[in-house]
Amino acid sequence: MTQLIGSAIIGQSGGPTSVINASAYGVIRTALDSPYITKVYGAAHGIRGILDDILYDMDQEDAYELSLLLHTPSSALGSCRYKLKDPEVDETDYIRILEIFKKYNVRYFFYNGGNDSMDTCNKISKYMQRVGYECRVMGVPKTIDNDLYGTDHCPGFPSAARYVATSCMEIYQDARVYDTPMICIIEIMGRHAGWLAASSAAATYMGCGPDFIYLPEVDFDVNKFLDDVEDLYKRTGKVIVAVSEGIHDASGKLIAEYGAADAKVDSFGHKQLGGLASTLVDMVKNRIENVKIRGIELSLLQRCAAHCASQTDVDESFAAGKAAVENAVNGVTDKMVAFERSYDAEGNYICNYKLEDLTLCANTEKKVPLEWINAEGNGLEKPYIDYLLPLIKGDVNPARENGLPRFAKLKKIVAK
Amino acid sequence: MTQLIGSAIIGQSGGPTSVINASAYGVIRTALDSPYITKVYGAAHGIRGILDDILYDMDQEDAYELSLLLHTPSSALGSCRYKLKDPEVDETDYIRILEIFKKYNVRYFFYNGGNDSMDTCNKISKYMQRVGYECRVMGVPKTIDNDLYGTDHCPGFPSAARYVATSCMEIYQDARVYDTPMICIIEIMGRHAGWLAASSAAATYMGCGPDFIYLPEVDFDVNKFLDDVEDLYKRTGKVIVAVSEGIHDASGKLIAEYGAADAKVDSFGHKQLGGLASTLVDMVKNRIENVKIRGIELSLLQRCAAHCASQTDVDESFAAGKAAVENAVNGVTDKMVAFERSYDAEGNYICNYKLEDLTLCANTEKKVPLEWINAEGNGLEKPYIDYLLPLIKGDVNPARENGLPRFAKLKKIVAK
Repeated sequence: MTQLIGSAIIGQSGGPTSVINASAYGVIRTALDSPYITKVYGAAHGIRGILDDILYDMDQEDAYELSLLLHTPSSALGSCRYKLKDPEVDETDYIRILEIFKKYNVRYFFYNGGNDSMDTCNKISKYMQRVGYECRVMGVPKTIDNDLYGTDHCPGFPSAARYVATSCMEIYQDARVYDTPMICIIEIMGRHAGWLAASSAAATYMGCGPDFIYLPEVDFDVNKFLDDVEDLYKRTGKVIVAVSEGIHDASGKLIAEYGAADAKVDSFGHKQLGGLASTLVDMVKNRIENVKIRGIELSLLQRCAAHCASQTDVDESFAAGKAAVENAVNGVTDKMVAFERSYDAEGNYICNYKLEDLTLCANTEKKVPLEWINAEGNGLEKPYIDYLLPLIKGDVNPARENGLPRFAKLKKIVAK
Repeated sequence: MTQLIGSAIIGQSGGPTSVINASAYGVIRTALDSPYITKVYGAAHGIRGILDDILYDMDQEDAYELSLLLHTPSSALGSCRYKLKDPEVDETDYIRILEIFKKYNVRYFFYNGGNDSMDTCNKISKYMQRVGYECRVMGVPKTIDNDLYGTDHCPGFPSAARYVATSCMEIYQDARVYDTPMICIIEIMGRHAGWLAASSAAATYMGCGPDFIYLPEVDFDVNKFLDDVEDLYKRTGKVIVAVSEGIHDASGKLIAEYGAADAKVDSFGHKQLGGLASTLVDMVKNRIENVKIRGIELSLLQRCAAHCASQTDVDESFAAGKAAVENAVNGVTDKMVAFERSYDAEGNYICNYKLEDLTLCANTEKKVPLEWINAEGNGLEKPYIDYLLPLIKGDVNPARENGLPRFAKLKKIVAK
C-alpha cells in the first residue's frame, strides 16, 4: 500500500436526508484524526463549491459542534443538483476541478449522495485516473429513496421510513376518530422506486396503517384504485391510502400529471412532481358523492425529521463515512461504501460493510422486488416487513435546548 | 360534603390532540380507583355514544393497555362534532341523556374537549341542575388551538407547538440546502387564534425558523405580505413563512377563500379550510417570476404526532383528568379544570390547577395578546417565547415495538 499524503474534500449532493450529516461527520472526524490527511475541506454545495473555489476549512470547526452533525438534518455543507457533462463532450468542469485539487493538494475526495451524486463521483474518479492525478475517490451513499444498487439499503432510508411509518400510525389514529366516514390519501416521496411508500406497510403491520399502498413498481390502474377505495369505503366508511409520488399508468404516464400537465423538469431531467394526493382526492370525489376525504403530503418532513430518526441508521451512516476514509487511506479508490446484511445465531440483524464499483452504483437503480408486492398490487408482503424492521430500530437522543433540537452551528470559514 | 356514589362517564369530543388520551387516562384511572365511583364508562364518540347508548365498560380494560393511553394520540374513545340544541328550543337530546344517566346511575360526567365541548358540558350541567338530577359535571380541557378562556394554556397545545417548532427547524435546514433561491410557506392550524402558528417563532428563536409569521389576530394585508416576501427574497434568496389557516383580510374574508370559494361549513358553522398554503404560493408566483416555492401543510400531523409530544404536556394533561375526578368526588360540579402558571425562586415554571366556571369557558375565546405580536404584524415578540418555552420541555419516552409506537389497544366492550 502506498501512503498518500494530502488534503481531503468532502461534498454533499442531491436531496438531503435526516442522517446525511452523520455520514459527513464520519468522514470529517475520521479525516481530521488521520495522520495522512493534512487538511479537511468541506465543499460548499457539493461540486459547485469546488468549481467556485468555496471550500470550508473543517480544521477550524469546534469539535462539539461537529459532533452535533450526527443529529442535524439536511446537508450542513449545502447541496446542489449540478450535473457534470460527459468529459468527452465538454471537459471544462473537469479541468477546473483538477485545478482546484492541485491548488489545495487534494488527494482524497469523498462524495456523499444518491445515484446522481455517485455519477458525479464516478466521472471525477475516472477523469483523475485518465489524466494521471493521484486522488482516492470514494462514494458515501445516501438516499431516502433506497434505490442505490449494490447495497442492502441506503443511509437515510431507514430514518425516512421510520418517520413515514410512525406518521402513518398517528394519522390512522386521528383520521378514524369521528363517527363519520373518512378517506385519507397520504403522498410519499419516491419517483421510480417505492421503498419509502412501502414503509407505510410497517404501520399496517402494527395494526394501524394504510389499507392500500401503491408503488411505482406496479402500473397504477385508476379504475382498480377507485374500486379498491369505493369497496372498502362502502363496507367500513374508513379508508387510508399511501401512494408513491411516482406512480404511473401502463403507458408510463405519471398519475400526478393527470391533474397537473405543467410539471417542471429539473437539471437531471426529473419531473418536479407534486399534487398527486390532490389529483387522487379529486378522482375519488368524482367517484363517490359527498365523500369526506383529505390528502396529506408528507413533503420535506419525511426527509428531514431528524427527531424521529433511527439510531441504527445514524450509526450506520456515521460508519459509512468512517469506512470511506479508512479504506481510502489504506489505498482503496473508485468505490462506494455499501452495506451487506447478515443475522447472528439468535436472528439479530448485523450490518457488514463492503465496497462496490462506482460505475455500477452510478448507473443502476434498485427497485422493490415484485415478489414483495401483493398480487393485487396494493400492498406489501411479509418479506418486505422483515427487511425493513431491523433498520428502523433504536430511538435517537439528540442534544436539545428549550425542548427543541440543538443543531450544529458551523463557522464555515472559507479556505484561502 | 355529600358523598355521592354512582357511575361515571368520560367522553371525548372535538378535534383530537396528541395528549387528549392522557387526560382521559387521568380520569379513567382515578375514577377506577375511587371508592365512590362504582362503574366507569367511556362514551363512544362523545355525546353521540350517550345518545346512542354505546358505552364502553372501562372496568374490563387491561390496566397496562389503559396506561398506554398516556402516549396514544387522538381520542381513543372516538370523537364527534355533535352540537346540542338549546334545551329551550328542543329538549329531545337532554331527555335522552337523562334517561341514559338514570339507566346507568351516572352521577359523574367528565367531558374532555375544547370550546364546543365545554359548551356541551355546560348545557348538560345546567340541564341536570334544572331537572334536579344530582350529577357532578366537570370539563377537562384540550385543544391544540390554545384558545380556551380562563386557563394559562390548554392541554394539547404544548405538544402541537413542540411538533410545529421542531418541524419548522427541520424544514429550515432542508429548504435552504441548495445553492438556488427558495421560498417555503408552512400552513399551521388555528381558525381564530394564532397560538399554534406563533409557536413557529420558537424555531426562529433557536436560529432556524420562519422569517415571517402571520396570525389571525392581525388583519392580513396581501400586498404587505408580498412586499415582505419579495424584499427578503431579493436580498437573500431564501424565505420561510408560517401562516395560521385562519388569516383574513380587513373585511374579515379568509385568505384561504381567495383561492377556493367553495369551502364547506361543518355542523358548528366553522368553515372547513384548507389550501391556504397553495393560495399564497399562487400569489407569490404572480408577484415574483420563475420563483421556486413550496407550500407545506402540516395537516393532521400537528395534532397527532405523539412521538414528538412534550412530557410537560403529557403530565399536565393526565393531572387535569385526575383533578377533575378528585374535585368531583369532593363535591365540586359545573367547573372546568384550568391551569395557572407561577415561577419558583429560581425562575422555574410551575403549573398550578384551579377551577373555572363552565359557562365562562364555554363562551369566550382567548387570543394571542396583540402586544406579543410585532409592530409589523409578521412576527412574535419575546414575551410569547417566554410564555411558550417552559411548556414544550421534556422528551417523551413512549412504549415501542419494532422501533414504532405501541399504542393502546382497548377492548371496548359495550355495557349492557
